[in-house]
Amino acid sequence: MRVLITSGGTTEPIDNVRGISNFATGSLGKKTTECFLRAGHEVVLLAGANAHVPENHVNLTIIRILGTQNLYEQMEKWVPNVDVVIHSMAVSDYRPVYMAGLESLPDQMSKMDLVHFRPEGAKKISSKSDYQVMLLEKTPKIITFVKKWNPQVLLFGFKLLVGVSEEELLTVAREKLVSNQADFILANDLENIHGQVHKALMVSKNADEKVLRLKNKSEIADMILKKSEGMN
Amino acid sequence: MRVLITSGGTTEPIDNVRGISNFATGSLGKKTTECFLRAGHEVVLLAGANAHVPENHVNLTIIRILGTQNLYEQMEKWVPNVDVVIHSMAVSDYRPVYMAGLESLPDQMSKMDLVHFRPEGAKKISSKSDYQVMLLEKTPKIITFVKKWNPQVLLFGFKLLVGVSEEELLTVAREKLVSNQADFILANDLENIHGQVHKALMVSKNADEKVLRLKNKSEIADMILKKSEGMN
Repeated sequence: MRVLITSGGTTEPIDNVRGISNFATGSLGKKTTECFLRAGHEVVLLAGANAHVPENHVNLTIIRILGTQNLYEQMEKWVPNVDVVIHSMAVSDYRPVYMAGLESLPDQMSKMDLVHFRPEGAKKISSKSDYQVMLLEKTPKIITFVKKWNPQVLLFGFKLLVGVSEEELLTVAREKLVSNQADFILANDLENIHGQVHKALMVSKNADEKVLRLKNKSEIADMILKKSEGMN
Repeated sequence: MRVLITSGGTTEPIDNVRGISNFATGSLGKKTTECFLRAGHEVVLLAGANAHVPENHVNLTIIRILGTQNLYEQMEKWVPNVDVVIHSMAVSDYRPVYMAGLESLPDQMSKMDLVHFRPEGAKKISSKSDYQVMLLEKTPKIITFVKKWNPQVLLFGFKLLVGVSEEELLTVAREKLVSNQADFILANDLENIHGQVHKALMVSKNADEKVLRLKNKSEIADMILKKSEGMN
């Protein structure tokens, strides 16, 4: 089986020296990759710039990813050629359009003025202003393209929330199954992730499969492998 | 001799899952640390979350740094107890005050409305809006506190610009010598840094010392050691 795994976080550049990064470490993607390699499968790992990655392996291809545009291009290339996609990367929901010293903005402005404003170009933002204003735009939801690129692929999506009830987590996970055309969604809450402890709920698009409660990264990786191999 | 080296970049949190990071890899700080350790000195290394750091060594203490506030506290603690400070870390000039969906802002606003606006609290920013607006405020220039904390310390500062002339680089470096009360400023241009190639100008507060032109990270590290040991 050939598997595409995304892990770690994206980084969206603000200028030449700084960017907005998602904090994900890539630990779960690393463990899942190792689990599939041990079972004899081939893995393509798209990993964020600072993500932890496994040791080299003859069946492993690692490609480093910067921003969402870069991730989109790599996924568009790889998804048609794999059997399973495990999309555990923390992808930026927004990317910077501009960052400008407050003094460069008009004195009075509407929301549309803020959207259409563009500062004079600079390769590195100056540190003279007391305040800076940044406009960010929504990035495309890459996971929604996966089944368009490959309708046969088995798709695992992830949803991370912070400080919500299990009920809310389940509701959001079920919405994501539909909106992302995913086969499984792993829903987790940042407040239940500490080192090896990593609680997650796994929900299937088959309404008759019961929700699985997983306790750590090994259990999550093993269950993804089991579902991928059709051994549930 | 006991030396404090800062390296890599800071990360300023936006919410629980993302932040603004400076891209510095910490390679120069790593090389400089190794250079001082080889010469028998003791090094305290304050390293950004993703910075490359040297192997463990009996004379080396490594402390990981997140944002500017964290860096300030650690420098305030260590600077009084060292002989030399080499401040090569890329420190955020700005940190986020808020990030808010465009629709939550007033229809018409002044600059001061933007500064004083505060969105409803949320642990993770929702991805529903098409646009987000972020306000950022200036961080304290930590290097300007070094000589207040320890007037006797020998201070090396760094200034990174992007795509400027050597003349402009020198002018800015000389301003920084004064405003930061630094003994030496290493001025470099991002366009002259590629892997091991790392061109830098080293200017001294002593106007009769000539400007040194350094070609790579090893030359920079060696020259900092030489100046620190007073062997110029």
